[in-house]
Amino acid sequence: MSFKTLDELHNACRNLPAGSDTAAAAVARRQDTLTKPQGSLGRLETIAAWLARWQGRDMPKLDRVKVIVFAGNHGVTAQGVSAYPSEVTVQMVANFAGGGAAINQLARAAGAELDVIPLDLDHPTGDFTQGAAMDEAAFLAAVSAGYDAVDADIDLLCLGEMGIGNTTPAAAISAALFGGGAEKWTGRGTGVDDAGLKRKVVAIEAGLQRHAAVLADPLKAAAALGGRELAAIFGATLAARHRNVPVLLDGFVCTAAAAPLAKLHAAGLAHTIAAHVSAEAGHRGLLQALGLTPLLDLGMRLGEGSGACLAVNLVRSALACHAGMASFAEAGVSEK
Amino acid sequence: MSFKTLDELHNACRNLPAGSDTAAAAVARRQDTLTKPQGSLGRLETIAAWLARWQGRDMPKLDRVKVIVFAGNHGVTAQGVSAYPSEVTVQMVANFAGGGAAINQLARAAGAELDVIPLDLDHPTGDFTQGAAMDEAAFLAAVSAGYDAVDADIDLLCLGEMGIGNTTPAAAISAALFGGGAEKWTGRGTGVDDAGLKRKVVAIEAGLQRHAAVLADPLKAAAALGGRELAAIFGATLAARHRNVPVLLDGFVCTAAAAPLAKLHAAGLAHTIAAHVSAEAGHRGLLQALGLTPLLDLGMRLGEGSGACLAVNLVRSALACHAGMASFAEAGVSEK
Repeated sequence: MSFKTLDELHNACRNLPAGSDTAAAAVARRQDTLTKPQGSLGRLETIAAWLARWQGRDMPKLDRVKVIVFAGNHGVTAQGVSAYPSEVTVQMVANFAGGGAAINQLARAAGAELDVIPLDLDHPTGDFTQGAAMDEAAFLAAVSAGYDAVDADIDLLCLGEMGIGNTTPAAAISAALFGGGAEKWTGRGTGVDDAGLKRKVVAIEAGLQRHAAVLADPLKAAAALGGRELAAIFGATLAARHRNVPVLLDGFVCTAAAAPLAKLHAAGLAHTIAAHVSAEAGHRGLLQALGLTPLLDLGMRLGEGSGACLAVNLVRSALACHAGMASFAEAGVSEK
Repeated sequence: MSFKTLDELHNACRNLPAGSDTAAAAVARRQDTLTKPQGSLGRLETIAAWLARWQGRDMPKLDRVKVIVFAGNHGVTAQGVSAYPSEVTVQMVANFAGGGAAINQLARAAGAELDVIPLDLDHPTGDFTQGAAMDEAAFLAAVSAGYDAVDADIDLLCLGEMGIGNTTPAAAISAALFGGGAEKWTGRGTGVDDAGLKRKVVAIEAGLQRHAAVLADPLKAAAALGGRELAAIFGATLAARHRNVPVLLDGFVCTAAAAPLAKLHAAGLAHTIAAHVSAEAGHRGLLQALGLTPLLDLGMRLGEGSGACLAVNLVRSALACHAGMASFAEAGVSEK
């Protein structure tokens, strides 16, 4: 899919499949026959129904779980918003290829394939304090790249990112979509000191001010303040919805990247689960604003899809219980 | 190990190994060299150090993960405290043997062996509203059975239980150890209605009153108000400490069963992690009283070790990152 205009993309965001009520109801019916007090598996039961609804299958499957990590570079790093130099983005992409990063270990532990998609790392986006991060063409190209990365035969998709400086665009997009000012959404990212944190807030305020005229449109906000890897996550989230692929969202950057879809459609993120709430300052508030309840809360703040990937085995366990448990009748266990 | 007297058991509880500072420090040192901002894997980093400390190994391993589910029956069910009849305990033990229960699926998903140990199911403990649940000999026998179930070559132990009515002894023990009255600790268990909940509170208050004279001694409280599977979990938790086996605790019943060890030794549960906080009313408060922070909060309330087992893959992921990640130097990634 190559989106040629913002209008075309708007349309794809506003006409979303609703998921299968039939499949979700079939799961709920079966859950109530299994050898456990009804509802006693808590969120594992709702996860099974969620998988069924968005895969459109009465009995979901998890044969093919994929993690996609999009990487991008950011002009706003010129404002001194990150603790690490921009070259770390490409170095970490090499580390992913070499198998040495956290996400490599986590993907293996989750039984997931890992794709890493670097997006024009040699050409950082524009510094949004000075102009738009991306013009319309660059934004649509990144969204399309994300969209095309999602095959319809994936059973569960974990989305992640790598991009030195990218908690700054994530905070800027969050502020643009949900208000509250830069400070509310700005955290220490990979670990900036107090002065760095102050520079982030100043840069974000400057960006919000400079682009104020376009921020009412979530897609224009994502182009003006975002980044390529964020746009690609947005595209991948949208593709997953159209292709019956349930999604595990990762941390603050990933959630902010997907958030415009919730602004364009009331149930835009219904096919996603927030895998975790990260330690990055803005994430908890962003999840609240989106009505998403995270599965995990482990003080992580790495990105790379690490939190999303960590939740895969919870989803596998939910499906294992649903698919493998005996009913009261089958097991000869007395009911209430 | 066969404990012959409460004094002997008291001694084993008061003389606990402290874990390896050296191994935990080695993990912390290595973590700080790995390709991630320091501390950004959050609790995964502390889990790796915890494994090392309690296994006594610089590089922990998880080759052998075991789930032990102890089962018992309870005389206090005569007070109408459970939504299910007592025969369900033995029926569920058969379901475990047949592979049809939640814990069978969860153990497989966690790569864990499952042992189920029924404890004299044909002879329920005494009704604690009328007398002691167990005399000293019966209590020590159950503790010893739990102790003996833990081999020293286990790398990680998940503890769970099955016993119709056993949230009642769990609440009674919690009230005995931490005060606050029966109501604070009493929940709906497998799903009693309002009248059943009232009967539970009345029964627990009666038990607390009847056995008031012995409740200052945590072991005597566990004998008078507990149950065989709770005593066995206590014994297994104690054995794990003496045999260098880190433990994942499950829900309310499991935590209440292990709690006397924290009363007998300030760091008595340091080798355990609370795998989850369940939806059963008293669990969150009990974890707070014990200073334990749960890994998961998924609204589960099944028991069987289900929450503990679900956390195994988080521990596996923590170790995978620790063992498998490249250092900044190895990967050629620039530091701050």
